[in-house]
Amino acid sequence: MEKVNLAEKFSLFDDRWNPRLVGGIDDYDIKLVKLEGEFVWHRHDEDDELFLVVNGRMSIDFRDLTVDLEQGEFLVVPRGVEHRPRAERKCEVMLLERQGVVNTGDAADSGLTRHTLDRI
Amino acid sequence: MEKVNLAEKFSLFDDRWNPRLVGGIDDYDIKLVKLEGEFVWHRHDEDDELFLVVNGRMSIDFRDLTVDLEQGEFLVVPRGVEHRPRAERKCEVMLLERQGVVNTGDAADSGLTRHTLDRI
Repeated sequence: MEKVNLAEKFSLFDDRWNPRLVGGIDDYDIKLVKLEGEFVWHRHDEDDELFLVVNGRMSIDFRDLTVDLEQGEFLVVPRGVEHRPRAERKCEVMLLERQGVVNTGDAADSGLTRHTLDRI
Repeated sequence: MEKVNLAEKFSLFDDRWNPRLVGGIDDYDIKLVKLEGEFVWHRHDEDDELFLVVNGRMSIDFRDLTVDLEQGEFLVVPRGVEHRPRAERKCEVMLLERQGVVNTGDAADSGLTRHTLDRI
């Protein structure tokens, strides 16, 4: 029964594209990640993915449009849809997705792939 | 593929203890609610429940302790655990729980029970 302070957790790491596990609800993981630059194009065939911007701004590119997100905004990327997260400057994001979803989805040979996450 | 701005959604209603549906991920609902005063004691036997404070502060009473939450903090109330949300002043909260979870849990005869939620 431990609460999570998002700012405190974000203060514990500063690398980019390396999500940390901070909690869970049922069989879903709650993760924090710092983004900067461009991620790889990928999709998650079976799973939706929630991006909530806690600090900064980011964009999510789709093949036919781009959605810009600012602090206090979220987007759920539907399963099966190719997307590419991107941020010009450091952006702090809360993620929610089912346990076991790998960050790079079908682009699993990417050097950015994280199969196991540190819990902080 | 529509993003959600939390502040904008909160500006659309001002009643208390009446969650609005603002999105979903897989078979989970993302809801916003404004709290003020004391809710009823209840539990959800099968489902965890996430409370993320967007604005203000709130407390969640358990039978043996109280957790105080401020802006930018979240708590996951584990399934089966009796709890009572409470806020001295208006508090804006994002909730996440499985579709079909009723806000008052086992206290389903409460006047605060909402079986259907408006989507905004």
